[in-house]
Amino acid sequence: MLVQPLRFDPLDYERCSHVGKWDTARVIEIDDPADPRLDDFRDLSTADRRPDRPGGRGLVIAEGVVVVERLLASPYPVRALLGVRRRVEALGELPAPAYVTSPEVMAEVVGFHLNRGVLAAADRAPQPSPEDLARRSTRLAVLEGVGDHENLGSLFRNAAALGIDGVLLGPGCSDPLYRRSVRVSMGHVLRVPFATMPDLAGGLDMLRHNGFRVAALTPRASAVNLQDAGLRGQRVAVMLGSEGHGLTEEAIAAADLAVRIPMASGVDSLNVATAAAIAFYAIA
Amino acid sequence: MLVQPLRFDPLDYERCSHVGKWDTARVIEIDDPADPRLDDFRDLSTADRRPDRPGGRGLVIAEGVVVVERLLASPYPVRALLGVRRRVEALGELPAPAYVTSPEVMAEVVGFHLNRGVLAAADRAPQPSPEDLARRSTRLAVLEGVGDHENLGSLFRNAAALGIDGVLLGPGCSDPLYRRSVRVSMGHVLRVPFATMPDLAGGLDMLRHNGFRVAALTPRASAVNLQDAGLRGQRVAVMLGSEGHGLTEEAIAAADLAVRIPMASGVDSLNVATAAAIAFYAIA
Repeated sequence: MLVQPLRFDPLDYERCSHVGKWDTARVIEIDDPADPRLDDFRDLSTADRRPDRPGGRGLVIAEGVVVVERLLASPYPVRALLGVRRRVEALGELPAPAYVTSPEVMAEVVGFHLNRGVLAAADRAPQPSPEDLARRSTRLAVLEGVGDHENLGSLFRNAAALGIDGVLLGPGCSDPLYRRSVRVSMGHVLRVPFATMPDLAGGLDMLRHNGFRVAALTPRASAVNLQDAGLRGQRVAVMLGSEGHGLTEEAIAAADLAVRIPMASGVDSLNVATAAAIAFYAIA
Repeated sequence: MLVQPLRFDPLDYERCSHVGKWDTARVIEIDDPADPRLDDFRDLSTADRRPDRPGGRGLVIAEGVVVVERLLASPYPVRALLGVRRRVEALGELPAPAYVTSPEVMAEVVGFHLNRGVLAAADRAPQPSPEDLARRSTRLAVLEGVGDHENLGSLFRNAAALGIDGVLLGPGCSDPLYRRSVRVSMGHVLRVPFATMPDLAGGLDMLRHNGFRVAALTPRASAVNLQDAGLRGQRVAVMLGSEGHGLTEEAIAAADLAVRIPMASGVDSLNVATAAAIAFYAIA
């Protein structure tokens, strides 16, 4: 049900050029929760799972006016919208059919009460390769084992705010297009390009080959203080590990240097997205 | 049911000196959910409300081994603990009776299923005055309108990690000792001293009188870039507003300077706790 052919570049932050006309006549009233046109939004907690998971169709789901607007402005091909009239009307032009219904019908379709009033579903889009992303970037985040969807979403929000050009997802990372990540990122996961990089050591070599210095963020005492590492004004990739265990030894060894945020004694660590924000700020 | 007299100083981060012996014989098995000794944990979602709220008794509730340990190490007078045996035994010495029961009885008492397995309840403790806190601090956070309990908890966690000596709560701030704040702060709200400062303008004058420079954090373009503001090595109070609306005009006008975190265009803002972390890092 891809409704419009798109020319798009997954690295392009701007609204892609939709071929064809935007049409507010795309608003369609639906009263029957069983209407098959609503299938993209049915049982929402499984519809957004990756296609390789049970019940997952890999749809990108945006919730609420702000995030839906970011989806509409993204390169992801929008399939359909579902919402109450007031929320849908707040969106302006529509690239796909917008099904308008009552909050009760919405709740019945999606399987839970949704107080944001509007949803959009899109197809996934091809990712750039890590090499493409590296060539077009000056500041990158490299993640290892960031498995928590909310942390991942927050990290993308911080990356967008603090001028990170892209995110490379190493082993053990979650799917950033999972609904909860999209929501927590305030939709910025739809703007900041990312690429999967399962071979971390090989990927770091590729980054060095493209002129990047790879800085591993770790609380260990032997690491250089972040502000003393001289990372401003360079091509820098900041590498971050999971909140629980941090980066693996192998990842730290494969980096060009280890950097740390000076921390008070007795405090275990910062949240990974918060540590990332500080590092992004420090290299900006 | 304050079981032990305490000598304590609310500004002291270390475990206060409990008068009397710690006693592992304080572990008491209870099978009956109606046992009145469990009243501190009954209907937990109201027991931790401030005394001025319906049903609130103002108890400080810690959940999970890590946070309970921080409560035991804090100046807050512990009244009782409740948990499954394995979790209680992980705590070592106990300053108050520890009621051991089954997960089912725990759930019945607290009113919901609790997967952290151990709780502690404490009385509130007197706060320092804003003046006391200022005199004993070199870096402070001043908050205006930070009403979200999770943001407040995250902010305390970041303050603890990044060397902030105390937090001054201006108008419109939530109660940092509410259970959700305590949990999200990982218990650090029990370590970082705070004081209520309802008169913001008067409080800022007091800070200046004590040698502080007050920096208002705001995204407005006219503000000085945080890294160019020369705030390191000074007595600095960073003032932060609500995530939604930021600081009021009055608050910004009453500060010594306005500072901003350089942000990418098109990104509304950072989460308030994340913005705070960057500012705390920048003044450390």
